[in-house]
Amino acid sequence: MNIKIEKLIKQFAKLPRVGTRAATRIVIGLLQDKTGRAESLANALMDAAQSIHPCPICGMLTDADKCEYCADISRKNGQLCIVRDLSDVLVLEKSGVFHGRYHVLGGNLSGVNGITPDDLNIANIADRINDENIEEIIFALPNTVEGKTTQQYIISSINNPNVSFSELASGVPLGGDLDYIDDGTLTLAFGGRKKL
Amino acid sequence: MNIKIEKLIKQFAKLPRVGTRAATRIVIGLLQDKTGRAESLANALMDAAQSIHPCPICGMLTDADKCEYCADISRKNGQLCIVRDLSDVLVLEKSGVFHGRYHVLGGNLSGVNGITPDDLNIANIADRINDENIEEIIFALPNTVEGKTTQQYIISSINNPNVSFSELASGVPLGGDLDYIDDGTLTLAFGGRKKL
Repeated sequence: MNIKIEKLIKQFAKLPRVGTRAATRIVIGLLQDKTGRAESLANALMDAAQSIHPCPICGMLTDADKCEYCADISRKNGQLCIVRDLSDVLVLEKSGVFHGRYHVLGGNLSGVNGITPDDLNIANIADRINDENIEEIIFALPNTVEGKTTQQYIISSINNPNVSFSELASGVPLGGDLDYIDDGTLTLAFGGRKKL
Repeated sequence: MNIKIEKLIKQFAKLPRVGTRAATRIVIGLLQDKTGRAESLANALMDAAQSIHPCPICGMLTDADKCEYCADISRKNGQLCIVRDLSDVLVLEKSGVFHGRYHVLGGNLSGVNGITPDDLNIANIADRINDENIEEIIFALPNTVEGKTTQQYIISSINNPNVSFSELASGVPLGGDLDYIDDGTLTLAFGGRKKL
């Protein structure tokens, strides 16, 4: 195989959810395409790589001074939803369940992986509480040990009596069959059972 | 979501075996990477798109005058293996089963998809037979109606008594359990049974 093509396949194969087989198909498909898809993808990628940067306020990616969520004056101030990743914002936006402000940590604290508070976008949460009159912080972090540790760390680092904290409810998913639900979730669902 | 990022995700999502979900992960991963992977992928892709072209002899992709298979003087002349796609060459090379020359058609004849002989890299096979003293043409096309039609078309278009034709054997794959083999393959395997 041509060395240039091989190198390109290796680069594609390193992308998440793409293996060598898929990368080979992708690269051959792109290079055989006569409509210029390869050039146009290369241009779009280079353009994005050079202009996209994290939003200085919330950590979302943007090519402007602020991301569209921080810039949108129609969004409700006062509520701050803390998520782990960018993609969590996309999921929440798609569901339309939340209309406040977001804050993307960029990860969770993890002793195993050596991720400390300095590695995460935590430091400016306190500033945001003051600047944006945040009254409620909603944690939408993964329901894992790391997620809960991170949540606990943030709560303990914010000494502000005007701020209340909440987290997403745990329990049986909508349409969830009890047969398929793990013991941990069941325990949480029992513990948090609602009176009817 | 930022429009530039959305456009990039859409372009990635159009690649084979990549859907919107995987494309989102890929794009976010690339843009959040601080080691410059996005730029380096964009550069490699642009470089390949501008320098890679089909080999004028066999149809493989190359950035030189001839592909490495046509340029390799250690490869056996006299045998020409006709395949549908580039990726078939890679599979055959990986197996190490063939050491002659390749010819990539770029598809198979198909009435349904409107693919005619003019769309395929068929015209110069006759020239190669003369130029390279081809004595045997080995068809390694898919074992489908389209593959067999294409094969038949090429055989009938080459009126050269010095050339013999062969095709890959059909039958039960190595380690193939009869339980899992379709009727068509079984019929071929019975018809082509070997005396012991």
